[in-house]
This record gives sequence, structure tokens and C-alpha cells, in this order.
Amino acid sequence: MPLRFARPAGSAYQYPLLVRHLLHTPLATAPLQEIVYRDRSRYTYRILDERIGRLAAGLARCGVEQGTPVAVMEWDSHRYLECFFAIPMLGAVLQTVNIRLTSAQIQYTLNHTRAEVLLIHRDFLSLLHELRPHLPHVRTVILLCDDEMEPVPSWIDMEYEALIRSSDSGFPFRDFDENAIATTFYTTGTTGDPKGVCFSHRQIVLHTLAVLGAAASPAHGQSFRHGDVYMPMTPMFHVHAWGNPYVATLLGVKQVYPGRYIPDELLSLREREGVTYSHCVPTILRMLLAAARSRDVDLAGWKICIGGSALTVGLAREALSRGIDVYAGYGMSETGPVIAIARLTEAFSSVSSEEAMEQRCKAGMPIPLVDIKLIDSNGREMPWDGVSVGEIVIRAPWTTPCYADNAVASEELWRGGYLHTQDVGSINGQGFIKISDRIKDVIKTGGEWLSSLEIESIISGHPGVAEVAVVAVQDVRWGERPHALVVPREEYRSVLAARDIQEHVAAAAASGCIPKYAVPERVTFVDSLARTSVGKIDKLALRERYG
Amino acid sequence: MPLRFARPAGSAYQYPLLVRHLLHTPLATAPLQEIVYRDRSRYTYRILDERIGRLAAGLARCGVEQGTPVAVMEWDSHRYLECFFAIPMLGAVLQTVNIRLTSAQIQYTLNHTRAEVLLIHRDFLSLLHELRPHLPHVRTVILLCDDEMEPVPSWIDMEYEALIRSSDSGFPFRDFDENAIATTFYTTGTTGDPKGVCFSHRQIVLHTLAVLGAAASPAHGQSFRHGDVYMPMTPMFHVHAWGNPYVATLLGVKQVYPGRYIPDELLSLREREGVTYSHCVPTILRMLLAAARSRDVDLAGWKICIGGSALTVGLAREALSRGIDVYAGYGMSETGPVIAIARLTEAFSSVSSEEAMEQRCKAGMPIPLVDIKLIDSNGREMPWDGVSVGEIVIRAPWTTPCYADNAVASEELWRGGYLHTQDVGSINGQGFIKISDRIKDVIKTGGEWLSSLEIESIISGHPGVAEVAVVAVQDVRWGERPHALVVPREEYRSVLAARDIQEHVAAAAASGCIPKYAVPERVTFVDSLARTSVGKIDKLALRERYG
Repeated sequence: MPLRFARPAGSAYQYPLLVRHLLHTPLATAPLQEIVYRDRSRYTYRILDERIGRLAAGLARCGVEQGTPVAVMEWDSHRYLECFFAIPMLGAVLQTVNIRLTSAQIQYTLNHTRAEVLLIHRDFLSLLHELRPHLPHVRTVILLCDDEMEPVPSWIDMEYEALIRSSDSGFPFRDFDENAIATTFYTTGTTGDPKGVCFSHRQIVLHTLAVLGAAASPAHGQSFRHGDVYMPMTPMFHVHAWGNPYVATLLGVKQVYPGRYIPDELLSLREREGVTYSHCVPTILRMLLAAARSRDVDLAGWKICIGGSALTVGLAREALSRGIDVYAGYGMSETGPVIAIARLTEAFSSVSSEEAMEQRCKAGMPIPLVDIKLIDSNGREMPWDGVSVGEIVIRAPWTTPCYADNAVASEELWRGGYLHTQDVGSINGQGFIKISDRIKDVIKTGGEWLSSLEIESIISGHPGVAEVAVVAVQDVRWGERPHALVVPREEYRSVLAARDIQEHVAAAAASGCIPKYAVPERVTFVDSLARTSVGKIDKLALRERYG
Repeated sequence: MPLRFARPAGSAYQYPLLVRHLLHTPLATAPLQEIVYRDRSRYTYRILDERIGRLAAGLARCGVEQGTPVAVMEWDSHRYLECFFAIPMLGAVLQTVNIRLTSAQIQYTLNHTRAEVLLIHRDFLSLLHELRPHLPHVRTVILLCDDEMEPVPSWIDMEYEALIRSSDSGFPFRDFDENAIATTFYTTGTTGDPKGVCFSHRQIVLHTLAVLGAAASPAHGQSFRHGDVYMPMTPMFHVHAWGNPYVATLLGVKQVYPGRYIPDELLSLREREGVTYSHCVPTILRMLLAAARSRDVDLAGWKICIGGSALTVGLAREALSRGIDVYAGYGMSETGPVIAIARLTEAFSSVSSEEAMEQRCKAGMPIPLVDIKLIDSNGREMPWDGVSVGEIVIRAPWTTPCYADNAVASEELWRGGYLHTQDVGSINGQGFIKISDRIKDVIKTGGEWLSSLEIESIISGHPGVAEVAVVAVQDVRWGERPHALVVPREEYRSVLAARDIQEHVAAAAASGCIPKYAVPERVTFVDSLARTSVGKIDKLALRERYG
């Protein structure tokens, strides 16, 4: 027998999952809620809606229509939020340009999408001036700036606020296919050209709903819901600041956009505007904690979700001691990005216990609709016992279906019908994912897989350690062995010795946390660790130098 | 330029929004969480998943395949929950039979869907025995019962638990089109045959996500999230118990199914199992409060969402005084059903104030993705000022696209591209919907619309009033006038007079709550009010008798 389908009334509305539909409830329930940009701008959701309409009308006048690639190079601002809506709502494709890439890579990505319109913050004008001759597709450049009094270079076509002012609100947005691409973004691979991922309207709407469901539902803490004040600390260009501005808008909460990230200014904004929920990579959290130390600020009431790389117990403990309700999330550009969020389950709602600390730092539990598997190198499923280690592979309604114009990498990403995260870890009986490493960063020693991340986590717990990276070095006897690169804390700089680190790891091994062969023979003290453009520790560079 | 679409990798998974995908996260994160059926059964989510597989395998053996209509007549149970998943997951259509209809109507609906397989609780066997000769499409009857020792009549094909036992778990569910019909249900119109609404997999998944987002996100109270224990008190046959069992399952919370609703048993179950979240119509709440009075039970920590008909301030106050966190929701069978849920906004988080009470009792704020309008009789939009009255019309991704095989009613429902709720009310600047009446129950007096519901709400606030209904009576001079039908409280039975009621309404009119011409000339004291099969006050019957 065939499946049954309804015969919709001729007038029945077929509701497509479009980004514009995320605006209905906040405009109905929170029209006077505030959106704040530094100390420069403050307006209501009703004005946001008006400006989205004006921006769309202005862009349409510039020739933007369905399918037009429109690139944005901007710090975190209310203007970026307007672009998050207006550009996809026109049916155009928003390219959130990764401004941490090299100029050559930025040029590559703008040419790869064939971006026709470029909205660019004044801070990047000198870069653009240099690239302009090499961007044959760009026909209109729109300047974003905080001070309209400053002169606009003659080769710029238009200034953003002038465009908004000269356009009418109430743009007649139309419905279209929910599978149309809404946004695109280029990931920073460690090798080769950046790879483009893309997200359709349907994917963004479903990601927003699922993240809201997961983020709003914890019993105590680690939540994002009504009453919260939101401030991103992961750049908006980076997979829509992990999708959070869409969630914040759907909730209708107060939003605070901080521009370029300057730790002292982030702390001041938080205090002034009453920010209660943010998200960032560990590096930013570390900078914030350093700034807070020097000002002796209490950060109680601030929930911060950490992603991008692992939240170590050492860092989490320091953040908690400052009053921050810190916890991990998990995902990557290819996965939309959110796959899992940590929360303390009812059994561990006390923040002090070791288990609770571990729950905060693990990569979290899958959010609604995420179908996750743990597989070995032959694609066989591994048990969820918290011990067995395999690669995390997933299905979710918001994962990128491909890399733009890169069939080989796309097929590799999706081989076997599951998206391969290339992350290695375990899952326990409560669905808590623990990432132990990137497949390529696993240390293969004596026929076993040893996690560089776990060794880092243990070493980071030593009071004298500010930062640590563990990389594999070639070894004749064992294949590979771990090499620890340690940045000591200022006050330990002259006293910390390799033996202290080795004894610390050996003690952890004695208690059964990690195998004995994890104790590194080589420990090197360094002043700092090489980082990638998005602030992650650059293991590739470290391996090349020390491996 | 055309819209842009991704070119998915050949192996990329195209994720359809199917009911079976709601099971991924609870099975990953809460496999040992409990599902309880009265004092009869208690098992884990892992067992639920196994039994869903076994049930599907058993039904497949009975010839159920994609498109097969399968009807269920059952009280609220773990078995019904299994049917909520297994039947749609097979691609078959689950008909949740409205057991409060007359036997003639039940026969009509079973023949209208051409139900081939019928799962039926022992309590309905005598009804079925009578109907059996008139159900030409039914070829298999499966018996649901709590006591397997009782004999199974010879004309029954199979017993549910025997079917489960004789089948293997791990049924290989396949993907299919997310727009396939998952469930169907017949609404109790006040005139004519029952009308069938239907919901696709896509609609159920999106309803579940949006309800979760709305229910989980209130800052204080009026919420449904992790840590809650769920017990339905709106029947599972009625638009999936307002969709809540799907939300509860997605959350992975403890679920308690009470069988047939018996107030004392509901209270005992609540206490024994620690129920914290339920939903029901006002009639059930009234019965619970009466039962609680006679036992002097404290109901603190119980959140109850009220729908179906208006939550009056009088009833809300009584529930609050028992410790119940009571609040309204809004929707109807045609709308999937949930459209709006009330919550106290931050400004009104004190439960005592009059405004807070009004926020609890209004029909709530629209949930994510709901696009709502207030229109006058010419289809023109009315302002959201909390005063202007119009019909509520909506769009949402989960509304029924039609009535089954009823093109005229379907087109009437959707005229102008919005679903017409036939509810009349106002919306304020915060998106709070206040329903004042059904279009057909509005009292047209002297050229004005007078809301029978508002008069009822005022009269219900009189301490001597247990229940009240206001209906229109023909009037030569004014067209129509209100007639109040009052059930007095036991202790007021001999003392309450029409004048008391009239003075009470006149006082409200004096304070500006309602026009002066709302004071009813006619007040009749009655022992009880006629009700429809789903427990709502039957205004049509009352109008016929008293109008």
C-alpha cells in the first residue's frame, strides 16, 4: 500500500522553514526588548525588524536578488545581526567571511563564492584595498563603520547607515524553497585551501529549534532561556556564532554585541548590560579570567558555554572559582555547528564534586534529533561504556551536505552515510561524549591509541601549568611517544621541572585515570604555543617543530 | 538569478523529519529513565524502544504496512505511547479514536478512515461487539488489557502482550517522505458528522520541537523540562494528549500514565510517582480540586497547563491556593494543537498580583514559528492593543492542511491562506492572546459584540458560584441578551439570589472591566451544566434549552 498524504485545501498555507519565520514570536512577544551594540547603539526588536526591511530594500536596489552571493566582513554587531536575517530573507546567500584567514585565503574564498556585494567594516579597508584588483566578481562595496563622520574612501560605493536611511521598511519578503542556501562559511583546514560549508534555511531553522530545546531545558544552570541577556564571544562569522544569535532572537531576549573582542571591554559590557549567557573558545575564557584577575571582578551569574577545543578541568575550575557557570558544547563548522551540550544531570547538581566537574568538561549530551554513533576504523559500532574509544560520526538535520565544489572531500566527509567528525572519543551510558582527540592527533604507541588531549588535561591540573600541548614524536621502539610542551605560570617559571610534570602524570596513572605509558619522556618548557587563525592550538605547527 | 542549492555528496544523509528520529536523544541520554503505567507496569526507555520494535514487527506480521490505517481505542497507557511511535514509524496511519463520541460516531470515523486493524481496550469490547458487523474494513482486532489472566473472547484475533512477546525487537524501520500522514483524529463538531484532521511526520516533529522550546524556556515556573515528571490528564486520543507525550519522550523525563481518569487515583499517582507537570481541561482540574479538598492534600510543586476552554480567574485562584502552578495554553485539534502557552513574564513573577493572575489565565503567548493575526469580519488586520477584538487566524508548520474528504469545510477553514480558529479575542503589546469567545457564542446586543466568556469569568469570581455558563437569548429590542446559568456552591444553595449575581457583574462594570449592558436580566440557578463528549460546557445544548 502506498504512504498516505493529505490533500491540502487550495488556500492552505504550506509553511516552509525559512529564516524569516524565526522573527514572528519575538516581534509578537518582545517588540520592546533591547539590542545593544557596545556603547554606540541601542534599539528595540521592532527597530531591528524595520532595519532588516530597509537593509533588504537597499540591497535589492543594489541588485541583490535570489541567489546573489553577498559577503560580510565585520566584527560582532547589530549590523551583522541585521545581515543574518536580511540577506537570507531575500533568498540571497550570506557569506560570513572568516576575517582571521590570511589575505590570500580571504581572496580565495571571496572568489570561490563569486561574491558580488561586499559589506565591510572600516577596520578591513586596507586589506580590501590590496585585494580589490583580484576580486573580479565584486561589483558593490558597502562600508560599515561606527563613526559616520569619518570620510568614506572614493572607491567605496555606499555607507551602510546611509543605505538604511534611504530605504523604506516593510520590504515584501516572499516565500521560497526551504532548501535554498542561506549562508556559507569557509573552514580553516590545517592543509590546503579553506573548504566551504553551506546551510539552507531549513537547516538553520531546525538547528535553532533544537539548540533552543537543549539549551532551555536543563533543570538547574547551564541554560539559555527567558530572562537571560546574551552576548556572543565566538565571532559571528564563525558558523553564525554557533547559531546563538538566531536562538537569542527567537527567544526575544536582550542581546549585546561587543564589536571586536577586547577582554576588558567584554568585562565592562557584561557588567553594564547584565549579560548572563555567552559562549567562547578556551583561549578567550583564559583571556577573560586574566583580565578579571587584574581587576578582581566577581563574574557570578554568567553562564559560558565552551566549544572549539576541549574545556580542561583546570580552566573550568578557575572559571567556577570566579563564579562562572562554565560548561562544554560540541560541534564543528561542518555540523552546523552544535551537536551536543553539557549539563549537570540531576544526580550531579552540586558543583563541587569531581564527577560534576567531569560532566561540565565532557563534550556534552546530544541535542534533539542528533543521531550519533561511535565506530572503529572498520566502521563497526563500539559500545557506549565510557571506555571504548572510536570515531564520533553523526546525522542531524543541519549538517552541511557537502564542501562547496569539492566532491572528493564531500564524499570523504560522508562516507557510509554518516558525517565523520574525525574526533576520537568515548560515550557513556548517559550519552555523555568525551572527546579524547582528533584522529590525526592520537598518539599511536606500542599498538595502542593514546589521547594527547587526556594527557594535556591531566598536566593542566598541575598548579604550575598555564597551558600545555602534547604532540606525538617519532620513536624507533614504540612508533610514537608523547612530547609535552608546557607554558609555566609566571610564578613557577624558575622552579618548574620536567620531573614535576612527569610525576604529576605518573600519579594520575597510578590512580587508573590513564595508562602508565602516557607519562611523557620529553617535557619542554616554552613561552607560548602556536595557534591557528581561530585561536586553537596549532598542533600541526607544534608537531612540525617539536615532533 | 535562481536560488542556490547545495549539491549534496552522494553518501550524504538527507534527514527527513520522522517520528522515529524523536527517539535518538532520549535513548542516548536517558535509557534507564522510567515509564510508569498506574500500579501495573514500570519499565525503562530502553524497554520502550524494544517494545516499539516488537509491536511494529507484530503489526507487520498482521499485514500492517505503509499507508495501512490502524485505529486505537485505549485509555492513557504505556501501550498507547508505544502505538504513538510504532504505528507511524511503520509508515502506517494511527487513528486515535475519540472514545467519548457516540457509538454511531465512532462507527462513522472507523469507516471513514477505513481502519483495517483495531487495537482496543477491554473496556470497549461490548461497544465493539455491537459495532463489529458494521465495520467492513476491520480485519484484525487486537485486545489491550491489564489482566492477561482474563479470558479473551473468541472473536478477538490477538492479545497485545502476546503479540509483543511473540515478536523480535530491533525492527528495521526505514526512512520515507516526511510529509506522509502519521496520525488522524476526529474532532467533535457541535453539528454534523465528526471531521477528520491529520498530521504528517514533519508536522509532529516540528510541533514537538516548538512546544519543547516554548515549554522549557520560561525563567520561573510554568515550564516543562529536565527534572520534571510528566502525567497526562488530557486523553492521549485527543490530538496526542496535546502533543505532550512526544515532548516528554524527546526530553527523556519520567512519564506516568494513569489509565482512565479517576480523580482520587490521579492524586495518589501524583503523590506516589512525584508528578510535577500535567495538563488538562478546566473540568478535570475542578474535579481534582474537589477530590483534594476532601483529602486535604497539598499539591505544591505541580505545574498544570490548562486548555480546551478558558481558565477562569476563580478556578486559577483556587488551584494556586492548593499550591498548583496553574496557567493556560491555547490551541485546537485543527492547530496541531498548541499555538500559545501562558507564562509569567519577568515583570509579573510574583504570583499574587492581579496582573500576574491575568497573565496566567489569558490564552498565552505564541510559541516559536506561529504567525498569528487578529482580523475583523472583512479580513482586515486589527491592532494589538489588548482592546481591539477580532478573530484569531494563524499559520504554523503543524496545522492540519484539511479535513479528511471534506473540501468545503477545508476551504472554509483556510480561506485567505490563514487558518481560521473561529475564536474571538484581543492581543496585547506583549503578544498575550485573550480569547473572549467563540465567534458563534458572541452575544450581539445593540450592535455591539459582548463576550459570554468574560461575563462568565466575572460571575465565577463570586464566592457562591461553583460553575457558570452565559448564553445568548433572543431579545426583541436588543437582538440578543445574555442569560446566566449558575451552579451554586453547596453551602450557598439556599441563599444565592439572582440579584447577588447581577450586583456582582454591575460592580465589575462600575470598575470598567466590562460594559454596563453586560449585566444579565436573566439568571437561572441549575444543578449542573450540559457538557460535550470531551467535557466542555455544551453551549449549543444550553442555548437550545434556555435561549
